[in-house]
Amino acid sequence: MPLAQPDSFEHRPNRAEDLLVRTRRVRSFSLQLIEPLSAEDCAAQSMPDASPAKWHLAHTTWFFETFVLLPHSTGYRAYNEAFGRLFNSYYEALGARHPRPRRGLLTRPGLDEVLIYRAHVDRGLEDWLAGPAPAAAALDLLELGLHHERQHQELLLTDIKHLLSLNPLKPAYRASGTHPVVIAGHTHQTYSAGPTGRCDIGHGGADFGFDNEAPRHSRWLQPYALATRPVNNAEFRAFVEDGGYSRAELWLSDGWSTVQEQAWCRPCYWDESLQAEFTLGGMQAIDPTAPVCHVSYYEADAYARWSGARLPTEEEWEAVAAGHPLAGHFVESGLQQPRAAAGDGMRALFGDVWEWTGSAYLPYPGFAPAAGAVGEYNGKFMANQMVLRGGSCLSHSDHIRPTYRNFFYPDARWQMSGIRLARGV
Amino acid sequence: MPLAQPDSFEHRPNRAEDLLVRTRRVRSFSLQLIEPLSAEDCAAQSMPDASPAKWHLAHTTWFFETFVLLPHSTGYRAYNEAFGRLFNSYYEALGARHPRPRRGLLTRPGLDEVLIYRAHVDRGLEDWLAGPAPAAAALDLLELGLHHERQHQELLLTDIKHLLSLNPLKPAYRASGTHPVVIAGHTHQTYSAGPTGRCDIGHGGADFGFDNEAPRHSRWLQPYALATRPVNNAEFRAFVEDGGYSRAELWLSDGWSTVQEQAWCRPCYWDESLQAEFTLGGMQAIDPTAPVCHVSYYEADAYARWSGARLPTEEEWEAVAAGHPLAGHFVESGLQQPRAAAGDGMRALFGDVWEWTGSAYLPYPGFAPAAGAVGEYNGKFMANQMVLRGGSCLSHSDHIRPTYRNFFYPDARWQMSGIRLARGV
Amino acid sequence: MPLAQPDSFEHRPNRAEDLLVRTRRVRSFSLQLIEPLSAEDCAAQSMPDASPAKWHLAHTTWFFETFVLLPHSTGYRAYNEAFGRLFNSYYEALGARHPRPRRGLLTRPGLDEVLIYRAHVDRGLEDWLAGPAPAAAALDLLELGLHHERQHQELLLTDIKHLLSLNPLKPAYRASGTHPVVIAGHTHQTYSAGPTGRCDIGHGGADFGFDNEAPRHSRWLQPYALATRPVNNAEFRAFVEDGGYSRAELWLSDGWSTVQEQAWCRPCYWDESLQAEFTLGGMQAIDPTAPVCHVSYYEADAYARWSGARLPTEEEWEAVAAGHPLAGHFVESGLQQPRAAAGDGMRALFGDVWEWTGSAYLPYPGFAPAAGAVGEYNGKFMANQMVLRGGSCLSHSDHIRPTYRNFFYPDARWQMSGIRLARGV
Amino acid sequence: MPLAQPDSFEHRPNRAEDLLVRTRRVRSFSLQLIEPLSAEDCAAQSMPDASPAKWHLAHTTWFFETFVLLPHSTGYRAYNEAFGRLFNSYYEALGARHPRPRRGLLTRPGLDEVLIYRAHVDRGLEDWLAGPAPAAAALDLLELGLHHERQHQELLLTDIKHLLSLNPLKPAYRASGTHPVVIAGHTHQTYSAGPTGRCDIGHGGADFGFDNEAPRHSRWLQPYALATRPVNNAEFRAFVEDGGYSRAELWLSDGWSTVQEQAWCRPCYWDESLQAEFTLGGMQAIDPTAPVCHVSYYEADAYARWSGARLPTEEEWEAVAAGHPLAGHFVESGLQQPRAAAGDGMRALFGDVWEWTGSAYLPYPGFAPAAGAVGEYNGKFMANQMVLRGGSCLSHSDHIRPTYRNFFYPDARWQMSGIRLARGV
Repeated sequence: MPLAQPDSFEHRPNRAEDLLVRTRRVRSFSLQLIEPLSAEDCAAQSMPDASPAKWHLAHTTWFFETFVLLPHSTGYRAYNEAFGRLFNSYYEALGARHPRPRRGLLTRPGLDEVLIYRAHVDRGLEDWLAGPAPAAAALDLLELGLHHERQHQELLLTDIKHLLSLNPLKPAYRASGTHPVVIAGHTHQTYSAGPTGRCDIGHGGADFGFDNEAPRHSRWLQPYALATRPVNNAEFRAFVEDGGYSRAELWLSDGWSTVQEQAWCRPCYWDESLQAEFTLGGMQAIDPTAPVCHVSYYEADAYARWSGARLPTEEEWEAVAAGHPLAGHFVESGLQQPRAAAGDGMRALFGDVWEWTGSAYLPYPGFAPAAGAVGEYNGKFMANQMVLRGGSCLSHSDHIRPTYRNFFYPDARWQMSGIRLARGV
Repeated sequence: MPLAQPDSFEHRPNRAEDLLVRTRRVRSFSLQLIEPLSAEDCAAQSMPDASPAKWHLAHTTWFFETFVLLPHSTGYRAYNEAFGRLFNSYYEALGARHPRPRRGLLTRPGLDEVLIYRAHVDRGLEDWLAGPAPAAAALDLLELGLHHERQHQELLLTDIKHLLSLNPLKPAYRASGTHPVVIAGHTHQTYSAGPTGRCDIGHGGADFGFDNEAPRHSRWLQPYALATRPVNNAEFRAFVEDGGYSRAELWLSDGWSTVQEQAWCRPCYWDESLQAEFTLGGMQAIDPTAPVCHVSYYEADAYARWSGARLPTEEEWEAVAAGHPLAGHFVESGLQQPRAAAGDGMRALFGDVWEWTGSAYLPYPGFAPAAGAVGEYNGKFMANQMVLRGGSCLSHSDHIRPTYRNFFYPDARWQMSGIRLARGV
Repeated sequence: MPLAQPDSFEHRPNRAEDLLVRTRRVRSFSLQLIEPLSAEDCAAQSMPDASPAKWHLAHTTWFFETFVLLPHSTGYRAYNEAFGRLFNSYYEALGARHPRPRRGLLTRPGLDEVLIYRAHVDRGLEDWLAGPAPAAAALDLLELGLHHERQHQELLLTDIKHLLSLNPLKPAYRASGTHPVVIAGHTHQTYSAGPTGRCDIGHGGADFGFDNEAPRHSRWLQPYALATRPVNNAEFRAFVEDGGYSRAELWLSDGWSTVQEQAWCRPCYWDESLQAEFTLGGMQAIDPTAPVCHVSYYEADAYARWSGARLPTEEEWEAVAAGHPLAGHFVESGLQQPRAAAGDGMRALFGDVWEWTGSAYLPYPGFAPAAGAVGEYNGKFMANQMVLRGGSCLSHSDHIRPTYRNFFYPDARWQMSGIRLARGV
Repeated sequence: MPLAQPDSFEHRPNRAEDLLVRTRRVRSFSLQLIEPLSAEDCAAQSMPDASPAKWHLAHTTWFFETFVLLPHSTGYRAYNEAFGRLFNSYYEALGARHPRPRRGLLTRPGLDEVLIYRAHVDRGLEDWLAGPAPAAAALDLLELGLHHERQHQELLLTDIKHLLSLNPLKPAYRASGTHPVVIAGHTHQTYSAGPTGRCDIGHGGADFGFDNEAPRHSRWLQPYALATRPVNNAEFRAFVEDGGYSRAELWLSDGWSTVQEQAWCRPCYWDESLQAEFTLGGMQAIDPTAPVCHVSYYEADAYARWSGARLPTEEEWEAVAAGHPLAGHFVESGLQQPRAAAGDGMRALFGDVWEWTGSAYLPYPGFAPAAGAVGEYNGKFMANQMVLRGGSCLSHSDHIRPTYRNFFYPDARWQMSGIRLARGV
């Protein structure tokens, strides 16, 4: 009789149902991110490497339309065929694209219409997931799209930060989430030895992972130790005050050229006083205990040399991180700046700041990109970039894992990139 | 009895009253121009030479605040002191400026606030004009500001045209005002001799003129003749089809370099078919009888050489134009493209298209820039630019006169610039 | 009877004989100029605007071969047909050219072979002149070639000066000819009024003149006065010490941009002390009484503004110069730097330093370039350049006349360019 | 009695004696290389990445003077102290340097004086080696200098090749040494598996090795196979003819940008016909069986992708090469172009062409640069470059070993760089 009811609790969602829930969660988070922004804010592009928020909103939508709905959902009709050209990022296989440095000139379609475009595609996805069970390969592309949108959510925030930083009014994106909370006793740092000898790294399970994380394979690690936390602002300020930006011997040759050409003399958003920095909450006092952020690979490498240390390789980092829980500050916490991590042991591997490794971004042995246009997702960027690990306070925690490989050019500074030191033993 | 009434009609407005009326007319026209635009449209900057519509709205307002209200209106309070830096265009004497190529990144203040800023300054001007009679020098600056705003109204339209032209959707600014009206019988062109010997040119009266139009002075003119109308699209198309853009012998050396570097092969907004062009009304068929537009000085000069003619000097142009009424198509007509002029004699000297002259933009003998920061208005640009005369269909007729000297670099194409031929006799 | 003998003295050289003598004189002077140089010195190119000395030697030779010998001398055979491409400077009508910025990479042919090429063409010219009387038009081209080589002789020296200035060893071209001779009492400067009203300028006689000097025509001159001598080093140093290079209000807008981009803070070859300069004789003390040299148009214009004066127009300059003898320091004197001119009245109009005028380089009314490829000699450069007058201490006096129009871009500094002030009256 | 004589044969050279012999051999080889060149050839610089031959001669000499003689040879006097600035390549610790892109402007000192400078330093080295036994550390620096000069000998040849290639006359450096010898039967290629699992790589013995080859350490290798010979010209031509340079999907993203910006459509020195190439012997027919040469990393990577293969990692390459003798074509053979290798098994690992690996140039675990200025020799370049292995036909065999790591930017094409394919198994 009524005892049958508990059965109703035992409904186990199938993959399509699970993805429907996650789709709604991911898609609505993007809308949440633009709440504090005007249509004008969403349309501007501050540099060729950055994109307008509106473009991020539209491009992630285009991704679902192009790779999921149009090939796999019978009856779905493209919202506007011209958008294929406007919102393709870099997929050469998909034809002509709007030039990247001109994304800020696309005042039409306006933000209003882009939101209608999003709603149109959202409905398309929901209808499709509610219909006959989609093929696994199609669901894989949907899942890829969700992770793709997570990536663009972080980029949307770092790009808006860069845009607002160039405005002499120094406006805040959102006032909360950046106030420093200096926690006494967290500055202690030691080194902790990691696994050595033959170690396996890379993504190998059934869970989602990008193609560039696979295949799982062996590396041979010489003895080494990792710092128990990222370098903090007080430490990096000491480097600056010790003439770090004017001593050629501390720098890679290309880094030194960059320092001189760009007239770098401190991290990206610090002001001249070395006491305040631009944040998503506007100008703020620098928290000395928080991880230093917005440094390039060149600066990370120079800092490490100045410290008598080096950066970890990505295999060292992953061998250590694999044994730790996914704890740290992530975007869903509302925090907009990294913050010192409590405790004494190995900490803050995840969240807070992306950690530059000393590894070039190259294919793992046996790497094979996916078939079709999505094969361009990762593989073609495997030159001239360096690997970062661990996510940042602007990453969503459902998007980060120990095997995740982020990558940027060694002179990039507008990402939430920081430093963890390593040493041979 | 009622005979007294006519007196009430005899109130003759004093200068302040007259300027009040003109101020309202000029200021409201700027608002009318942005009616068809979204906030996003108004915020974008398509190239360093262009400015966002919002910036034009704010900069013209800043001009009145800076040069009229703050120094001359007791009790006026600046709307926001930070705007001085944001909306100063090029006045070195007034301190630091926001870099010109980054005007499109000023998403704050938003359009809404810029309109409030305009209203604040408009009220300030009205209060001031309604108060104790201002000094003549202060009213002169107000009048300068009105002409300044007329200049920016034309730039606002040419800048928006450039912006929209780069959008693959080819959106229209306003649908009306560009439809070609091919009028049979208007293609006839002859040459008509102009005054020779000692001729006086330049602005000399009590009416308004920019400092660069003065002083009035004598030139000696050899015999010459001017074409009775501007070169039209059909004629320029013949130049293109005759290989005009690939024959080095037709070009100035710097022009030929520009043709090759920029890969020019037709006027700025023509498409490959040579039959359609981008206009403020979107893509339109090219009217063969309308004056060719959006050609640079280099193209005008090459076309003239191909025709066995040359461009007029500015003194020749003015000597001829001084005898003609201010007839032509102007922006207040609602027309957005130049149109063929009816009739047979000398025509279309004013409005329709700015006419490149063969004269470099240099000071007249005895030229003296105004004192103070407004002295930077014109004089400091007297190098590397060429003079254009006559106004265009995007100029307001109350802003154009025979002595008016417009000037642009010889490679500029985004203005409404066309060609009138001349010949020695 | 013997009275007939005097007849033999009365042999009046015909034009071919006269040109033969002048050809030998001009051609051998080029060889004399490279005497102090090694083959390496003659091969290097210090910047795109400059050319290697070897290239000057070869290009001037190519000019005679291409325009005189090949079309007009039956039986003359080209030395090497490939040289047509290597040594054509800018004649589009004559086909492909070696790119200008790569002239310094032409290590083959070596200097030895270029000298053989010169001898081959010299013999060709002599044989031709000794043969049947050439047509007048052909002799005109020969004469053009001689003036062309005079131009390149001056460029050879200014280009070598630039090259050697970049060598940290600061080597001298030739030790003599640059020692300053400070002559007391020559610093006096006044202004002297020039002809006004209708004045004729331009070249009109039967003597040689470049096409750009013609036709002779009338101008109307308002009252003005010219400084009686060029600005000297002591005066220009006062401008520098008065902050001349850091006061925006003194500069044209394009000039101010150039000052900032190029970090100009003194004339081209002055050192930091403002007391010494690089010369063709190596580093030398600056002669305070000598005309300042190696300033751009922008600097000349800024200096004039700082002085409360202006630059003369080319018609003012010529109207004054037409009445003065061709007196001054020229290259045949062996002097390598300008020197103060003795006397009190109008002086040093010729030689010493080219004087920037405030006139853009544009065609005179009725200007027609020569037919054929030599029509590219002057006309196609009539945009974006300013006129200089009077020749320099590196010009040969047989090449200078009052109507001569030299022209350079307003930012050019490596020529022997100086300043004479003017004022309205 | 005379039986004692055999003893005199038993004199075993000590290290100083051995180095004296090697010094003479290496130093005289540099002179031999410039025999076919004029002083002009030796002075020119064809691009910023290349240096004049004269500069190579002087810089290698400066290295001995600066690091060996001045600090270690009592009584040695510098030839000319100014040379320290002129001929320092990139050692920041040693003060100001002449800017690299201006090396071609150093016409003084001339080649003659540079040869005298060489003789002065050669005598200094010989005197020093003949004197009291130098310290081992000083001899180490001498040995480093010899290997340094070997590197510059190869660069001298590749730089001269580049310079001559830009001359429209296409002059030969030396006529012999480049004639193709098509040997039938050498085009066979297979794949051969290499060692797997834990493998040691890097330099570990007492013999000379650069600091970047150490320390010897373990890597874990997954199963793989290497092609038995480099890709040849016929194979690469098939890639070109298959549209290799116009198919984006074959290229890394940065490579594709480079292809478009540089308009690459074939290897560096091939002509349009794909049948002839510029060599040190002038234009020559392309030998279809010879290894393809002068391809960038991007081209090597794209070719491998087109082939369904990949490039080897540097550890794979070294694990295989360690088991093979140092056989191949080297510069001492007089050959100037790579040539097909006879035989069937793994061949041509050494000499002929440098082989691009898929490994970024990064420090080995435990890498420590040498103390002092020579510490800048290798370490500071460990960013943005890729490793090449094996030497080329322009390397001297006494300079090449299996552990040798050469490195260039991925777009470099003027080196003797080719391709060996690899595959996972």
